[in-house]
Amino acid sequence: MNRHAGSERNLTLVMDLYELTMAYNYFKQGNKDQLVYFDMFYRKNPDNGGFAVFAGLQQLIECIENLHFSEGDIQYLRSLQKFDEDFLDYLLDFKFTGSIYAIKEGTPVFPNEPLITVKAKFIEAQIIETMLLVTVNHQSLIATKAHRVVQEAKGRPVMEFGARRAQGYDSATYGARAAYIGGVAGTATVSAGEMFDIPVVGTMAHSFVQSFDNEYEAFKAYALTYPDDCVLLVDTYDTLKSGVPNAIEIAKEVLEPMGKKLKGIRLDSGDISYLSKRARAMLDVAGLTYVSISASNSLDEYLIRSLLNQGAQLDSFGVGENLIVSKSSPVFGGVYKLVAIEKDGQIIPKIKISENTEKITNPGYKRVYRLFENETGKAMADLITFHDEVIDSTKDLTIYHQSDVWKFKTIEADTYTVEELQVPIFENGKFVYEKLSVKEIRDYSMKEKARLWDEIFRLEFPHNYYVDLSKKLLDYKIKMLEEKRK
Amino acid sequence: MNRHAGSERNLTLVMDLYELTMAYNYFKQGNKDQLVYFDMFYRKNPDNGGFAVFAGLQQLIECIENLHFSEGDIQYLRSLQKFDEDFLDYLLDFKFTGSIYAIKEGTPVFPNEPLITVKAKFIEAQIIETMLLVTVNHQSLIATKAHRVVQEAKGRPVMEFGARRAQGYDSATYGARAAYIGGVAGTATVSAGEMFDIPVVGTMAHSFVQSFDNEYEAFKAYALTYPDDCVLLVDTYDTLKSGVPNAIEIAKEVLEPMGKKLKGIRLDSGDISYLSKRARAMLDVAGLTYVSISASNSLDEYLIRSLLNQGAQLDSFGVGENLIVSKSSPVFGGVYKLVAIEKDGQIIPKIKISENTEKITNPGYKRVYRLFENETGKAMADLITFHDEVIDSTKDLTIYHQSDVWKFKTIEADTYTVEELQVPIFENGKFVYEKLSVKEIRDYSMKEKARLWDEIFRLEFPHNYYVDLSKKLLDYKIKMLEEKRK
Repeated sequence: MNRHAGSERNLTLVMDLYELTMAYNYFKQGNKDQLVYFDMFYRKNPDNGGFAVFAGLQQLIECIENLHFSEGDIQYLRSLQKFDEDFLDYLLDFKFTGSIYAIKEGTPVFPNEPLITVKAKFIEAQIIETMLLVTVNHQSLIATKAHRVVQEAKGRPVMEFGARRAQGYDSATYGARAAYIGGVAGTATVSAGEMFDIPVVGTMAHSFVQSFDNEYEAFKAYALTYPDDCVLLVDTYDTLKSGVPNAIEIAKEVLEPMGKKLKGIRLDSGDISYLSKRARAMLDVAGLTYVSISASNSLDEYLIRSLLNQGAQLDSFGVGENLIVSKSSPVFGGVYKLVAIEKDGQIIPKIKISENTEKITNPGYKRVYRLFENETGKAMADLITFHDEVIDSTKDLTIYHQSDVWKFKTIEADTYTVEELQVPIFENGKFVYEKLSVKEIRDYSMKEKARLWDEIFRLEFPHNYYVDLSKKLLDYKIKMLEEKRK
Repeated sequence: MNRHAGSERNLTLVMDLYELTMAYNYFKQGNKDQLVYFDMFYRKNPDNGGFAVFAGLQQLIECIENLHFSEGDIQYLRSLQKFDEDFLDYLLDFKFTGSIYAIKEGTPVFPNEPLITVKAKFIEAQIIETMLLVTVNHQSLIATKAHRVVQEAKGRPVMEFGARRAQGYDSATYGARAAYIGGVAGTATVSAGEMFDIPVVGTMAHSFVQSFDNEYEAFKAYALTYPDDCVLLVDTYDTLKSGVPNAIEIAKEVLEPMGKKLKGIRLDSGDISYLSKRARAMLDVAGLTYVSISASNSLDEYLIRSLLNQGAQLDSFGVGENLIVSKSSPVFGGVYKLVAIEKDGQIIPKIKISENTEKITNPGYKRVYRLFENETGKAMADLITFHDEVIDSTKDLTIYHQSDVWKFKTIEADTYTVEELQVPIFENGKFVYEKLSVKEIRDYSMKEKARLWDEIFRLEFPHNYYVDLSKKLLDYKIKMLEEKRK
């Protein structure tokens, strides 16, 4: 895998077949070039949390730039006997010529607001659907989970260790990328380090310790190879009777004479709270107060919180399967819905109705704003409006619940600041955004999360952040619903 | 993506960094070429089920064949400043020269038996660890889940629809492959169809219906494009008042005059049981008894069972997120443990001890046998022995529980047949197995599952299949544990 392998793969056919059967219909019916607007949004935060971290935009950009049907792809599609040669010819020259607007990667986001808006020819908007969703759903899920885990570590570094339990190679590599955006300090997955310049970490497994005649010899060998970066796994035989005493001897007999310091020990089994306290005491008595203790046994945000509440003496954490697949909540339910059609230069809003109120879409070509309270600098609400609405913060602003018409709130003039969330990524097929490093995205994400009230980040019963509508949008939505009922 | 894109990617660095820091130690200590034996096994069936489907072997073979460090990889590893130039030179020429034995892909398997055994130089065995685990863990998880879902559909076809909710591109593509091995009839994911010759299916989304002035026009357009394969999504507006009546009109007014038959309708929201019964009645009254009804709304094995128990009139199912990430149980906990070291031509068994009895490994270089009862042809137990043990089925055979020494069972001579489960895949770096089509693997899997008692497949409290040890192996294990205690 080379440095930018991700940008060279043709992932075009990672697509539901119905995108192509629909595309073929548009092609045959002559409406393939009709301009349409699709919104990508999600309805529910993972783990019943209070927010999500939007991630995956960079890979979506690469997918769009790389989008093409190879000769081999065409040959395969021909073999399905569902498409005629005109259509296959069309696909061979296919590229995305539309516009994509998206919230910046790393931004904390909320249910039912458009994270991505696609304005494109119908056939193009349809063909990118699956790829867009799988990219954003996967990375937003893992970035959000990472935030939760990191938050509960209260400033102690968390390392991502999950590759072996990932759902395939991309889940390992892009999952590590997303976890880093969400806040982990590094990953064990080398491919993620190579592709995204993420710090990589790793020392030894039990098999290494077992490969020597005894634990002391194993530790000694490792210390001699990595005197500056020596973290010893102390639970292969008996943590307190063998592992920690051997680690102490290595620190004193091997490293100190070299002028080096043992960096840390790692606990990977047993009662981590108890073992960490005993190990800390043993290290301290030996004068090794500088040796850190890390833990890595099936941890998640709740276990880390519990360990710290018990006074466990832990300085860092390695988190595996519970993070890399977001085990407790392994699906980010992003959807992609038609919200408008352009006819004779007019944008005609479309709505998807449902018996389930939460599943009714917000119609039209729209904008998303975040409203900040000037006094605290904290975000108060997100506001969805039609695309042609302008907010004047020198005037009072009334914002409305998405479905309960009696719920609204007025924000006083000159007490708030407005920021638009979506930025142009592609305009008429041309990439107009910037490519950021994962580190930059991570830093931006931290900064934006700090602009939200802490109550949003609570694991249990988080504050329900407002995502409201403008009066104009709400009225239009209600009118459409009433018309549909007739 | 071309037809065999999977075999061209270099996934070598999808690896935990500790594989390399350990490898570097072996390299520096001079024991890198020591022959060792590792077993890959798992401890618990997903979803508390009674078995798992072993899958991913073909991709593991491709990973091993493709294993190499590119110039770019070496450059990246150099930048970490953890390895010297001798080691980096060694990696540049690295290839796998060891032997791999594995259970055939698609075989139903059970906890604690070696699915894969690697006999290789220490450094090579370590370097393939992460790749081996992520490959097998992912696909075995999804194949196992697919079996559960398909089983509850009781002969009705199940389609895999999950790409958009997958955990990355590989999760979508290889997940569809694994789901097919597990028993689904097809997938919506085109890349999986292209790469693995899996049947692909797909018709339309709600956006297609919304793109027309009304539902009838949308259905008509689709019927004209695909008269031979017309499945209409009937829930965009109102299933019973609009969707089904329009579908009936299309069948009668558009398709019948062409000599064609409407193939089916699809329900994607609402009370599927109720709607399917009402829709079936409406179709039947209209003389359209041949039109099938499919459902696809957040289904899993339990919902499908419940729908059929309610008498829902459904002929096929589309299953998305609950299958593609095995939502209710998204981790397959396969591990890779050192079981023996070769010294001066002697194989020295190794054991990993733990306070947790289930976590104690079975030491030594071993074989796995499946024992079939001659009378019924059904499997009775799997038996793990040392590699040099031979089973003579003309003699009584006593098999022993893995840890409870008082639990054993004697099988009478001439009442059973023995089959060895692992076959050689690589011998001294040379591929010695065969490459099978996914269809062949699927057929083989079905055949092997049919050789197990049905009670193993129960969703709740499945029969606990025996995976036992030979007397020799159990005695050796106990002796080792006693020695460790001293």
